[in-house]
Amino acid sequence: MRIAIDAMGGDFAPRQIVDGALGAARHLGCGLVLVGRREAVERELERHDIGGLDVRLVDAPDVIAMAEPPAAALRRRPGASIRVAAELVARGEAAALFSAGNTGAAVVAARSAFGMLPGVDRPALATTVPTRGRRPAVLLDSGATVECRPQHLVQFAVMGTVFARVALGIEHPRVGLLSIGVEETKGNELTRETHRLLKDGPLNFIGNVEARDAYSGEADVIVCDGFTGNVALKVSEGLVETVEHLLREELSRTFTTRMGYLLSRRAFRRFRKRVDDAEYGGAPLVGVAGLCLVGHGRSSANAVRSAVTLATRFVTDGFLERLSREIAALPWAAVRPARW
Amino acid sequence: MRIAIDAMGGDFAPRQIVDGALGAARHLGCGLVLVGRREAVERELERHDIGGLDVRLVDAPDVIAMAEPPAAALRRRPGASIRVAAELVARGEAAALFSAGNTGAAVVAARSAFGMLPGVDRPALATTVPTRGRRPAVLLDSGATVECRPQHLVQFAVMGTVFARVALGIEHPRVGLLSIGVEETKGNELTRETHRLLKDGPLNFIGNVEARDAYSGEADVIVCDGFTGNVALKVSEGLVETVEHLLREELSRTFTTRMGYLLSRRAFRRFRKRVDDAEYGGAPLVGVAGLCLVGHGRSSANAVRSAVTLATRFVTDGFLERLSREIAALPWAAVRPARW
Repeated sequence: MRIAIDAMGGDFAPRQIVDGALGAARHLGCGLVLVGRREAVERELERHDIGGLDVRLVDAPDVIAMAEPPAAALRRRPGASIRVAAELVARGEAAALFSAGNTGAAVVAARSAFGMLPGVDRPALATTVPTRGRRPAVLLDSGATVECRPQHLVQFAVMGTVFARVALGIEHPRVGLLSIGVEETKGNELTRETHRLLKDGPLNFIGNVEARDAYSGEADVIVCDGFTGNVALKVSEGLVETVEHLLREELSRTFTTRMGYLLSRRAFRRFRKRVDDAEYGGAPLVGVAGLCLVGHGRSSANAVRSAVTLATRFVTDGFLERLSREIAALPWAAVRPARW
Repeated sequence: MRIAIDAMGGDFAPRQIVDGALGAARHLGCGLVLVGRREAVERELERHDIGGLDVRLVDAPDVIAMAEPPAAALRRRPGASIRVAAELVARGEAAALFSAGNTGAAVVAARSAFGMLPGVDRPALATTVPTRGRRPAVLLDSGATVECRPQHLVQFAVMGTVFARVALGIEHPRVGLLSIGVEETKGNELTRETHRLLKDGPLNFIGNVEARDAYSGEADVIVCDGFTGNVALKVSEGLVETVEHLLREELSRTFTTRMGYLLSRRAFRRFRKRVDDAEYGGAPLVGVAGLCLVGHGRSSANAVRSAVTLATRFVTDGFLERLSREIAALPWAAVRPARW
């Protein structure tokens, strides 16, 4: 099994990407196809002993920067690393794709290389988030499709259900619709209509979930449009940093609280790990007819390693096949009303 | 000066509402008009010594519950406390209104009793949020107008600028547009078009602000539609609770970390206070032609007291007059293109 890696994508590419991917390959024995500028990737490879590893390098002269409008950039640059990597997977030369680069570019490249799964109109990023409960939850879409119609959110709910079953081992995932009040009448046009569709559908729909309960664990699958999901996740990221900053400030004020901080440092570190671990290093792009994991732009070697590990698990578990089988088996008439 | 209080609005009404309002009246010497079911409010008043205070009770037989669709409920019940209270302010019998009840009902009641300020099409809730910097920031809209067009966001930016100047004392507030990427091209249709308008406008516009930087302090005014703003704030609230919960769990694990927790407890309490204080107990509804502050549904007596204090400050500072004057003085041609 080989995983295609967009070696040029991410704030710390190619170094952290190559280091992390090699770490996973060494640990799991999986193969890698590193896609990127030959010299840049070779320079990183020279820092490692890759004897015994199945590592291929595929040259891709171009890179899509974080700030670029993805569709136009990909059209102009057929040699962009993310595009070359996606096409390798589409041709069967690798089993899955990982990129920590421009998320929009990964979405567009994966979509045009793989096509969509039958019955799905738009892709979604399924991000695993920590909860107060024993299990994490999955939030989708966290940024792949920023303009959504109700039918798209219903499809996200279906895919999130399958993801929670396959990846998180939850037999009957409870699906919640992210909104600004638990009542059916609260929300915007999009959520009100989606609520109506989900209520009549075959999923284990528990109704609207207020944003303040997103991390409570009351829903296993949290559904929203990609703009809202991205805002919710990024606000959370920023807030965890702000909380740590403010707490550290408070804790360094007096001798007593400083002592308290020293004694509790390990707990802080464990807490950080719990928050970070839940992310698994990468979020799968569901809905496309191929395996693609998208990492955070700030991905470290460790995060890349986790993401590649998750990718191999998805391949081994036949995630994509289960997803398309379960989508095909669903009573679509119920979740996909003719009027859409 | 008298403040009208919706005594029946909020999860802990009427007790916490009456207690908090009386606390503020005692401290500031302002008058109160308590609006609600006569017996319920009288029962609460009996627990206090109100000698020397200027407290009026206005009977309002109906209450709008949290879950009700506001417009329909207000039409059906002219005797609802929030509606009676708003009309008192419109008639000049009180200088400002406070409610911790159904936010939508407060928005609809204030809007229909006061009307809108000239040049403003939709109201917004301006919520003050803590930042990593020295000053708090203001986020609007945090839930008054869930479906927005670009022109509405531009008007929110103008009102946020005036609010930051008057209430937070920031001379040239930096205005940021909440989006899912700093680049102009990132976001949804609404944010892209709003970006274009703000870029050409007269405000101190610093561009898109990613949700992860909402609390960084880089923008003094953060503009978004009411759905997104509400999700961002509520996710933050829930996350602070989750962080506290998870940290407490970690901190109670071993003797050492437990000791650390005991020593750092005061720092936690101060941190909590810093987060809570920033909220001032109530968010002003800007854009309507009258003073209205909306509190959190879970408002405690302390939060109500802060909100009433803020309301009196707005009255004394002539906030509403300054807001309408500054809006009138703006080169509207620049921020309000003819095509809208």
